[in-house]
Formats: sequence, C-alpha cells, structure tokens
Amino acid sequence: MEKKLKLALIGSRGHVGYVFKVLKDLPELDLCAITSGSEEPADGLLQICTERGYAPQVYTDYIEMLDTEKPDIVSVCGPFELHAQMCCDCLERNINVFCEKPIALELEELDRIRAAYDKCDKEKVKIISMVGYRGEAPFRTAYDVVSKGLIGKVKMINTRKSYKLGKRPAYYHKRATYGGTIPWVGSHALDWIYWMSGNAKFKTIHAMHDTADNGGNGDLEMTALFTAVMENNVLASASIEYLRPAAAPTHGDDQVRVAGTLGVVEVMHDKVTLITADECKELELLPERGIFYDFARHLLYGEPCVVDAEGTFELTRACLEARDIADRFKI
Amino acid sequence: MEKKLKLALIGSRGHVGYVFKVLKDLPELDLCAITSGSEEPADGLLQICTERGYAPQVYTDYIEMLDTEKPDIVSVCGPFELHAQMCCDCLERNINVFCEKPIALELEELDRIRAAYDKCDKEKVKIISMVGYRGEAPFRTAYDVVSKGLIGKVKMINTRKSYKLGKRPAYYHKRATYGGTIPWVGSHALDWIYWMSGNAKFKTIHAMHDTADNGGNGDLEMTALFTAVMENNVLASASIEYLRPAAAPTHGDDQVRVAGTLGVVEVMHDKVTLITADECKELELLPERGIFYDFARHLLYGEPCVVDAEGTFELTRACLEARDIADRFKI
Repeated sequence: MEKKLKLALIGSRGHVGYVFKVLKDLPELDLCAITSGSEEPADGLLQICTERGYAPQVYTDYIEMLDTEKPDIVSVCGPFELHAQMCCDCLERNINVFCEKPIALELEELDRIRAAYDKCDKEKVKIISMVGYRGEAPFRTAYDVVSKGLIGKVKMINTRKSYKLGKRPAYYHKRATYGGTIPWVGSHALDWIYWMSGNAKFKTIHAMHDTADNGGNGDLEMTALFTAVMENNVLASASIEYLRPAAAPTHGDDQVRVAGTLGVVEVMHDKVTLITADECKELELLPERGIFYDFARHLLYGEPCVVDAEGTFELTRACLEARDIADRFKI
Repeated sequence: MEKKLKLALIGSRGHVGYVFKVLKDLPELDLCAITSGSEEPADGLLQICTERGYAPQVYTDYIEMLDTEKPDIVSVCGPFELHAQMCCDCLERNINVFCEKPIALELEELDRIRAAYDKCDKEKVKIISMVGYRGEAPFRTAYDVVSKGLIGKVKMINTRKSYKLGKRPAYYHKRATYGGTIPWVGSHALDWIYWMSGNAKFKTIHAMHDTADNGGNGDLEMTALFTAVMENNVLASASIEYLRPAAAPTHGDDQVRVAGTLGVVEVMHDKVTLITADECKELELLPERGIFYDFARHLLYGEPCVVDAEGTFELTRACLEARDIADRFKI
C-alpha cells in the first residue's frame, strides 16, 4: 500500500512556493488543511490552492488545525515572529516541520525549539528550514564540485546577497516582526557558507549593519557585512544589502565563491565557473531539485535530505548572533 | 626655461615599473642615479635603465646617493622593511618621495614618517605611495562614476584581491621582511575602499588572516578578510588571498564594487558595469593615466595628483592596524 502523509500549511509569508512547486510530484502527500497563522484571513493561500486544484480545510486557528487534522508535515510561513512558537507547537505534537528561515528571531526562542526537538524521537520527527537555494541548479553544481574535492581543501568562502528594495509590507519595518536583514536576507548567504564549508560550525562571528537611507522602511537595515572563521578555519564573508538598482536584470544578485587549495568555484548570474591548475571553464548545471521534494522523500522513504535539524539550528544561531553583534557594533 | 627635476631610484622590489612606464613622457625628468637599497648589486635595475637608454650613476649606498646627487624625486622600492627609513631619509633632505606601498611595516615607523613629513614645507615636499591602480582604466572609470554622484550616496564597497601564489622570493617568507599579506596584497583593496569612499577615514577595522596551507612560504598569510566602517558610515570589505589557480586567465582577480543609494558600479575582469534605476550597461573606459606621470606633473606644474600624503598615511595606518588586529584574532 502506498504511503500517505497529511500536509498542512501555515501562512504564506516567504517561501511557501517551495511546497507548491513540487506538490504535483508528490502524490503521496495530501494537502489537508491551511491557515494564515495570523489575524488575517487565509484568502491568498486558499487562492493558490484552488488554482492548483487543491481543496484543503481552512482554519482560523493553527493550534485547532494541528489538533483536529493531526498532519504529518506542516509548512510554517506564518508571521516571522511566530515561527519559533509554531515550530515548538508542531514538534510537541510530533509533527515534521518545514519552516521559513530563520526559524526564530531571538536566541532564546531557538533554545526553546531545540528543547522541544530534543524531546522528540529524532528518527521520526524532523525539522528543517527553507534553505531552498541548496536545490537550485547553480548552487547544487557548485556544491557538487566542492564536495567531490575538486577545489581541494576549502580555505575561503565569499558570498553576496543584493536585493532590490521595492515596496516592503509593514512587518518589514519593525525588528520585532522582521528580525533584521542579516537573519532574513543574510540567512541565505550564511547557509551557503555553512554548507560549502562542509557543515563546519561558525567559530567566530563578526558583523555590522546600518539602517540609514532605507527609504522610510523603519528599522530595516539596508546594508550588512558578516565575516566568520569556521570551525575548520575556513574564512568566510557575506555582503548583504538592499541596494540592487531597479534596472538590474534580476531581483537578486546571488553569488558564492569557494576558494580552495586546488581551485576556485564561483556561482555568479546563475552560471558556475571552475578554475583549477589545469582549466578554467563554465560547468554544465546539475538539474534543480526542490528542497520540499527532498524533505518529503526523506520522510517518506528515508532518502537523503540536503539539510537537517542540526544545520537548521546552526544557521539560525549564526544569523541571530551576527545580528546581535551588529547591534552592539554601533555605526 | 624648461623645468628640470632630478630623479633617483632606490631598488626594484615591487612597482618601480610605474616610473619606467611613463618616463619617456616626462622629458623634464633626469634619471641621474640608482642604487639597490640592499646588500645586493643594482644589476637588475641598471639593466632596465640601459635597455631604455638611460645611463644613471650607480651607488652602493643610498644615503651617499641622496647626499651626492641631491635628487628632487626618489622612487623607493628597496627592501620592504627599509621603506620607512628611506622615506624619512628623503623627507629629512626635502626630497619628494614615490614609495612602494606600504610605506612602513610597523605603526611606529609610520609615526616616524609622519614626524619627518611634519617638519617639511608641505607646499614643496610631497610623499605618495604607489597606488597605481588609481590610474588604470577600469578603476579610473569606476571612480569617475562614483565621484560624479551617478550612484548616489555610497553605502557599501566590496573588494577582492586574488593572486596566484607562484614562487615567492625568500623575503616573502618572513613577517619582518614581508610585512604581511594584508599590507602587501590587501593595500590595493584598502586603497580602493578609501578612494571610492571619498577619502573617508577607516573608523572601525576588523580583520583576520591565516598562514595555513601556504606551500612552504613561511609566515606568508594565504587568506585574509577585512571589514571596516568608514568615517562616513560606508561599510567596506576586502577578500584577500593567494588562491588563484594556475589556469586562471590573469595573475590577479581584482574586483571593486561600489553600491550607493542610486546605483551600483562594479569593476570585474577589467570591465566596468554600471546599474542604476534606468539602465544596466558596460561603460566605455577612460584612458589609463600613470600614477608616476601624475605625481611628476604635480611636482612640476601643480597639476592635481590622484593621491596625497594624507591618503598615503591613512592607507598605511589601516593596513597595519588591520594586520595587527588579525594577528591578535587567533585562527
């Protein structure tokens, strides 16, 4: 008999699109219920479901949804400041969690999630955050090169996240509901660092950020810089900002460069270049693989998943520590 | 009557090529004397002179050369660890100095140069370091865009210096004779930061470096990261390393990216790209202008020079402070 897992969705702030992108390839999943996770109605989320032929039950209260539907997997894209509580509520019910990153906005919240996770049967209950870049073709291709040792021992990782500012909803304007630019935008860059370094922990972190010239966006930091020494002595940097001009060809300028003792691999403008002692070439890209597809197959069949709970917790810790360090480092 | 200035050269470690590159365009200069500045004979330097049709007097002692020839300008490319003393010896004789960067390997040496300079008539005696990138076409072009305000208020500057390690002479292997990778390689990047920020001082500096995996090159740091907040709150970063693989198309991967409130300008692979709200385009390059040509014309005719003593001192300070911070920041 085919396995079936019940899927429920909380909210649509962020990357719930990762779920919808691959849901048609996962017939084992039953999208049973949705809720907004906030005071607002779930109209937008329901519309996405309807357009795709899903007819989930709609709840106004996510706890009621969890207790009534007893889903196997929950996608958490509620208000950023509720991520941590929602994760805890799921874990306490032994529900697998696919949560928007960062999964917490304060370090104490992260501690609470860890504590809830530590009480779970870790063979059965999983939690990961939406580090979807890991599944995108250029980043997968670069990681493949690094993990195969083609650039030797990794020594330096440089990353860039540059976004167009555009018009941002009001919850971006307050630290309490946004969390900060390092956790929100920078988390992608810090995840590349962690991943490409071979899951080395962030040993020493330094960071700075600045809210000036943010076009009336309240507390939102326009610029941030991050550096770290990883546990394996890789040096790593991230440049994070909302300064990408309107005429730029894409919303984001996402770059990763990994330099090792035998070569350098670089992701830029969705292309991947490898330079070694012998050649300098653009690589053919591996196919994209959706992160939610990965996670669902992991839960269903025990296939390997591109990220795990420890990676999720370490990324969250690094983001929040960096933000807190940047806060103390007065501009 | 045409002005004439006497030029003498000390040594050929580093960028004395900046002098020879433009000497034919400066008929006002009389290359009167050379010396190696070290125990070694000045054979290499003499050969360069001879090939170009110059027949300078050769000295074994630079002090004797200064006191006998009384040159108006001296190019200082002696052993790195003697830069500071040579600068002082020139300034104390009211001789203009064109010195390889960094002009000092220790902060106390820089203080001594400042003190010597402060005793000079600053209208008549000048000192600059060999920040020759400022005259290269791509960097001049980017600076032109920034200084004209085309990218608005500068917010973030990211720089990269990546070199092939190759085979390095023995003086690169010891801190005492090399000075460190941040001052030697990184000085270019830090100068771009200082220049593109509008000559803002480095307000807060953070740096790290690592000597591991340096292929038997002694104390030489293979990797370094630098971040700073400038006096005008620009955030700035530099990635500095010797990891450029042999098959890379050029010796150095030199990059500068300046992001402002109205646009982003980027120098990469000798091309310059400007993105604003309205357009994304590659810029036509301004012509190259040799830094020594600039300096000589400044001394001869009071024409503006691309760098001055204050910029030279501030760059040196930032490099040495960053290196010292990186030393204390144990990897």
